[in-house]
Amino acid sequence: MEPRISVVTLGVADLARARAFYERIGFRPSGASKPEVAFYRAGGVVLALWSRAALAAELGRADPGDAPTAVLLSHNVRTREEVASVTEAWEAAGGRVVKAPADTPWGGRVAWLADPDGHAWEIVWNPRWPLAADGSLLLPP
Amino acid sequence: MEPRISVVTLGVADLARARAFYERIGFRPSGASKPEVAFYRAGGVVLALWSRAALAAELGRADPGDAPTAVLLSHNVRTREEVASVTEAWEAAGGRVVKAPADTPWGGRVAWLADPDGHAWEIVWNPRWPLAADGSLLLPP
Repeated sequence: MEPRISVVTLGVADLARARAFYERIGFRPSGASKPEVAFYRAGGVVLALWSRAALAAELGRADPGDAPTAVLLSHNVRTREEVASVTEAWEAAGGRVVKAPADTPWGGRVAWLADPDGHAWEIVWNPRWPLAADGSLLLPP
Repeated sequence: MEPRISVVTLGVADLARARAFYERIGFRPSGASKPEVAFYRAGGVVLALWSRAALAAELGRADPGDAPTAVLLSHNVRTREEVASVTEAWEAAGGRVVKAPADTPWGGRVAWLADPDGHAWEIVWNPRWPLAADGSLLLPP
């Protein structure tokens, strides 16, 4: 298996609500989107939004409802100041702020957020992990 | 907010078990990994493994245990045959096969898998979504 994630699909309760939220905060829908699933370029990976109930049915599991998930999506930014500006944009778009921007013990700055379905996101400025011009994260080898 | 996912963090019950699994199926740890968190290049995004309990605590939520999550990670492959070979590698490494490789109504081939913590993965051959030489998915604009 080549080490690769191609698509991250978030299961959502209300696709129209989730689409509106992600499009308000800056994601642009791909022409590959369909009535039942929305696709967005999200840097080097694709973000998809799809029915949480349909996802649970495919997996043969109970619909988790708004229960916590064990997944965190991080959005790394270029500057310390962007942690606050992205958090403000998130809140203005109808997202929730779980923890306001704060400095970390390792010299960075982080805010914790949740989307309308409770999916957890973290906005991170990590001065030790620079971003390339295209926004990709330059992870040390 | 620039439309970008930088890191996908999976909350895991046993970090050593999760590391061993992902390294057996082909992920190579970054030198940025620490005793409490493992980082892997995963194409255009970084895969991280971290304590599920610590993640829940940061989010102010109950530890979800092995409850279903509402997130699906897709691994797109270059050829129809790779769906089976990746599924076999996954099972040999200690992962679970939720649905064996099968053709889809839209002309592709898909297998549904779960990692040792129950995180859902899908191995996908989609002839309409080619992969670039570097493995990245060429999503239609």
